[in-house]
Parts: sequence; C-alpha cells; structure tokens
Amino acid sequence: MKMYSFVAGILLVGVVTFSNGNLLAEKESSVFVSGQGRDEPVKPLAVPKVADQAMVELGKKLFFDPRLSKSGFISCNSCHNLSMGGSDNLKTSVGHNLRKGAINAPTVLNSNINFAQFWDGRVKNFKELLSVGDYAYGGMVAFIEGKVSNSRRVPFTHALTVAILRSIPLYVEEFNQVFHSGRIDMEQMITALTAFEETLVTPNARFDKWLNGDDAAITKQELAGYKLFKSSGCTACHNGPSLGGNSFQKTGVVEPYKSTNSATGRFAVTKKEADRFKFKVPTLRNVELTYPYFHDGGAATLSKAVEVMGRIQLGKKFTEKENSNIVAFLKSLTGDQPKFELPYLPPSSDTTPPPQPFGK
Amino acid sequence: MKMYSFVAGILLVGVVTFSNGNLLAEKESSVFVSGQGRDEPVKPLAVPKVADQAMVELGKKLFFDPRLSKSGFISCNSCHNLSMGGSDNLKTSVGHNLRKGAINAPTVLNSNINFAQFWDGRVKNFKELLSVGDYAYGGMVAFIEGKVSNSRRVPFTHALTVAILRSIPLYVEEFNQVFHSGRIDMEQMITALTAFEETLVTPNARFDKWLNGDDAAITKQELAGYKLFKSSGCTACHNGPSLGGNSFQKTGVVEPYKSTNSATGRFAVTKKEADRFKFKVPTLRNVELTYPYFHDGGAATLSKAVEVMGRIQLGKKFTEKENSNIVAFLKSLTGDQPKFELPYLPPSSDTTPPPQPFGK
Repeated sequence: MKMYSFVAGILLVGVVTFSNGNLLAEKESSVFVSGQGRDEPVKPLAVPKVADQAMVELGKKLFFDPRLSKSGFISCNSCHNLSMGGSDNLKTSVGHNLRKGAINAPTVLNSNINFAQFWDGRVKNFKELLSVGDYAYGGMVAFIEGKVSNSRRVPFTHALTVAILRSIPLYVEEFNQVFHSGRIDMEQMITALTAFEETLVTPNARFDKWLNGDDAAITKQELAGYKLFKSSGCTACHNGPSLGGNSFQKTGVVEPYKSTNSATGRFAVTKKEADRFKFKVPTLRNVELTYPYFHDGGAATLSKAVEVMGRIQLGKKFTEKENSNIVAFLKSLTGDQPKFELPYLPPSSDTTPPPQPFGK
Repeated sequence: MKMYSFVAGILLVGVVTFSNGNLLAEKESSVFVSGQGRDEPVKPLAVPKVADQAMVELGKKLFFDPRLSKSGFISCNSCHNLSMGGSDNLKTSVGHNLRKGAINAPTVLNSNINFAQFWDGRVKNFKELLSVGDYAYGGMVAFIEGKVSNSRRVPFTHALTVAILRSIPLYVEEFNQVFHSGRIDMEQMITALTAFEETLVTPNARFDKWLNGDDAAITKQELAGYKLFKSSGCTACHNGPSLGGNSFQKTGVVEPYKSTNSATGRFAVTKKEADRFKFKVPTLRNVELTYPYFHDGGAATLSKAVEVMGRIQLGKKFTEKENSNIVAFLKSLTGDQPKFELPYLPPSSDTTPPPQPFGK
C-alpha cells in the first residue's frame, strides 16, 4: 500500500467520524472503497468536513436567490446550474439585460480545490470576489452581471445587495443565527456562499473507485483511455484531485488556438507578454456535464476538445479509436452530484427594493 | 361535525393509505388535524394521490431543464420558481431574447385546481398547452418564450424540442421506462410535466389547520382579518380550496382599474364585449410569496393589493388596521412548499442541437 492511499484512507475515515451534515453523511458511506490506492498523477477527491451546517444552508439559499442580481432573475445557480454540472452549458453566459458573457462559465463544482479562480486566476479564492466585485468587470462579466458589482457596466451596488438582504425578515433572522452580529454585511454574504460552495464536491466517480483499488470500477476502454491520456502528456497539466485547476498554461503550445474570443488570459492580470493566452487549466472532473469546452466554449463535444488539445498542445493526432478511448476515460470522472433539497427562499417585504429585469 | 369535514377526513386518510411517493408520505402526517372542520366558503387543500412516481420524477427534470427553451437558459422553474412560491416575483416575466412578458406569471402552485389556465383562461388544463403552443403567443408570451411554440415570434418548434429530448440518451431511457413506447413525443413531455405539476400542492397552511378545527392555528388578528375578508365580500370570488381559480371576474367593478398593460382578459378568447377586462380570479394560496399582484403586477405589496381590490371591486376603503388584519389573514394561507431534491439533468450528447441564447 502506498503512503498516499493510506493517508487518504485516514482522511476519509476522519470525515465519516466528524461530519455533522446530512449531505456528507450520505456520501461518505460509499466514498471509502478500500486501502488499495494507486499511485497515479490523478488523485481521488475527498469530501471536506462541513464545519457549520447552518451557514451552508444559508449560503445555499443565497446561491439560489435571484434577488442578488439587478434583474431579480439571475442567481448563482443560473450560470452555475447544480442540475447541470455546476455550469450553464452555454458557450458564454447570459448576463443582465441579455449581456453576452465574455468567457465560458467554469463549473462551480470542486472549485474550492482550484489554486485560483476565473480562467485568468485574477482572484485566489471565492472570498476575494467580495473585493473584486467592486472594480473588475472585464473577463468576469458572467459572474458580475448585476450581482455584487459596483462596476460602471452593471450598477448594482454592494449597498443595494445588502439593503435587499436586510429588508427580508427571515434573512435577517437567519444571518443573525449564523453570524450573531445583529446585522447583515457583504462579508457575511460571501462567507455563507463560500461555505456552501465548499460542499460542492463530487466524490465517488468510477475513476476514483479505480484509483482507490477497485479494478472493476472502470471498463477496459476507460483504462486504455486513461493510459493514453497519461502517456500522451495530458497529465502534465491535468493532474491532481481536480485534473487541473493548479497551474496556468498557454493554450496553443504547438499550434495557435483560433478563436474570435478576445480574452487574453493571465496577461490581463500580470500584463506580462509571456502570460498572453495563458489560462488556468480547467478541471476535468464531471467534464461530461460541463460542455461546451475551452475558455470560449469553442468545442461543443468532448471528442472535439480531445482532438484540439492533442493537436495544439501536444502535437498529436489521435486516431478515432484513441479519441473515443480518452473520451470514455473522461466520462468515468463524473462523480456524485450535489444532493440536497431545493431551498425555500424567504419572501421579500414591503420595503425590499424591487428588481429591475429590463433596462441597463 | 359537518358532512364536508367528514368527507375531507376520509379523503385525507385515503391519501395516507394509498400514496406511494415520498413527497406525499412526508406531508400527510401533518395534514390531518382533526375532524372538527368548519363550514366556510374557503376550503382546506387536499393533497392528491400520486399515481406514477416515476413519471413525476421525469416531469420534475423537464420542469427544471433549460434545454426546453430556445435559449437553453430558461426553464419552467425560471418563471415559476419553486423556491419562490412558484412565481418569479417580477411584474412580467423575462422571456427569450429579453422579451418582456405580456402579463404577470401566475403561480404554478395548486394550479391543477384552477378551472382554467392563464389569466384569460384560454386553455382548460395544462395538457391543452400542448396544442396551444402551436399557435398562441399573445397573452401567454411568458410561457411561450422559446419553449413549446411554433409561433412566428419564437420559432422554437415542437420538432426541435422533441429532437433535443431524443438526443439525450438518459432521457430516452427514462421516457421509455415511463411510457414504454420506444420513442419520445410532445404529448409524453406534457403528460410528464402535468404529472409533476399536479404534485405542486401546498397543504398545511395555518389557515387550513384552523379550517380543520385547530382554534390555535391562527392569531386573533388573522381571524379578524378573515372575518372582514368574508363580510366585505371578498369570498364572493376568492373562495373554495384555492380562494380563487374558479371564475372569471371583471377587474374594476366599482371603479376602473388603471394600467398601462394592454391585456384585455377573457375578451381575447371570446371576443365578447362583456368579457373585456374579465380575468380568472387568481388563487390566494401562498399569496405572501407571489408578489407583485394583479395581471400587470401593478401592486407591489399585499397591503396595496388589498387597498385596490377593496376600492375598485367592492367600493370599500379599509382603515389601516382593517387592511393589516386582512393582510395578516392572507399570510396565514402560506402552506408547505414543494419539498424535493434538486433534480439532476441528464447531459446532452454530441448530437444535441445547441442552445441559442442570443438573437431572435
């Protein structure tokens, strides 16, 4: 037994022992397959402990609440739809007043594992969005659309967000139960949303079961696909528990990536020419569910994405069979999706500022 | 004991005995309060038996699936949000390509009790929407926006809807498990959606508990509000288990209703002058959650709605205290909201027609 898998075993037992949320309690039963883990560049996902279930429940409501957008129509779940792999399955998202998002909405699933957020990694973690919301609006339009932004493009201010929350009696009560501060502020809102986001982990993918020692968990084709994925060099970037989310890499190493999308990637943050067209490597977890692919949503299918990646990143042309083997492997990465009751949102009061679904 | 309440008791016991769905099983335990029912113009809600839980589960997925809209962004739940009283809490809904809905989206909750659907009652039941989708687009824009319509305004055809469903392997499998026909058609889609919709009943409102004999279920203020509601004549139209949904009535009996909304009500269906500005009386169930009010969403608050109704329908000017008593009563009509797990939507395949979120 490898040391790695031993540690993973301990960790998972720990989760079973200490977790206090229903969500987790349900999942752990099948997370821990065996101690016969494999030493691979891809690692299994572990389910984190939920420290404060009440905060998670509050964050869940906020995640589904369209009143946190100017329109009163768009919630976090609109573009990070938890029924659809935490994505919207659109090339780029639909924003306030039908604004076209600048970049493909990345999945919110397992995003807490990412070393940075957004395709250009402009913030480290979800909490940083609190400040980002005040000034940034370039590549992150999909998020910012009328949500927590003071930007000129979408004048939906933090002050208004807080005013809306404070006007809803049951939110006032619930925030107070969670934060005991007697008031609601943006930091609390983001803290609760972050707590919920951290539960959006998708363990028990068949490939994880294989990683944990269950030989029968994946088919021969999927195994062949994984071996080719590894031997071709895909794991140079798509590795770790998230198969990505831990480095910036240039899109188009061998051959340029052709796109009408104007995103410049990491360059937008660092202004260094070397960072032009470097993007955060996206996770491949649940990739079957998060089509279309790439920062511009330019690849509609997994097969296309594999073809393009092989060609422009590795200089490889996969045969049809090789391509389908890799696609089969990628589909074995679909894990247990978030499982919870649709939240009930507390009603507005007579003093709640009204939504503005139409107009800029 | 009145005969009515005795029958209700039998009915509810029947539901407990025969129901086979988790949703119902959870609810019945508290539905049946006692046999001491009251003989009132308002009747308690009964939870219907679920005949086919598998069909309900399929319908639930369809209800949440934005691929049934042209944009790939709008689902039934977008405008009939089950986290928000089955409504969107907007004056009029947001449609495809930011089209402005012509009329306020009525709640989907308890809508199976309505004697007709839409504000102008142009169809009797949900299944009739199947055919309506082919030609109607006037007052029902909010529903039709890119959904099941062949209308010129939103060229999202039935054929395309069916093509999308047929392209999704797990839907093909699930439709076949439910309908055993080996194919998917529009009628099946509507049948499944209807089955789900029929479960969207909200029993156990405190007022229902009072109707069922529990004196302590409502406050003195709420009781005073109900008595005034009744003595003022509100129950002439807002009666039965739904407190409405069973007649067309002219808006503005004593005094005309002022609105910039161009809806003509029942006239649009019958072309009879006498039907001009007659609308289906909306349900008052969960009315606390379904703001703003009236066909044009012209009243932002319950207090305003009560004021206007009293004035233009009854020629009454309620005092502030009377108004707040009626509002308090109305808030006692909020029942158990639909309670179920967020559905997981089966992923598209390589052949699924892509969504068109932008453009007409």
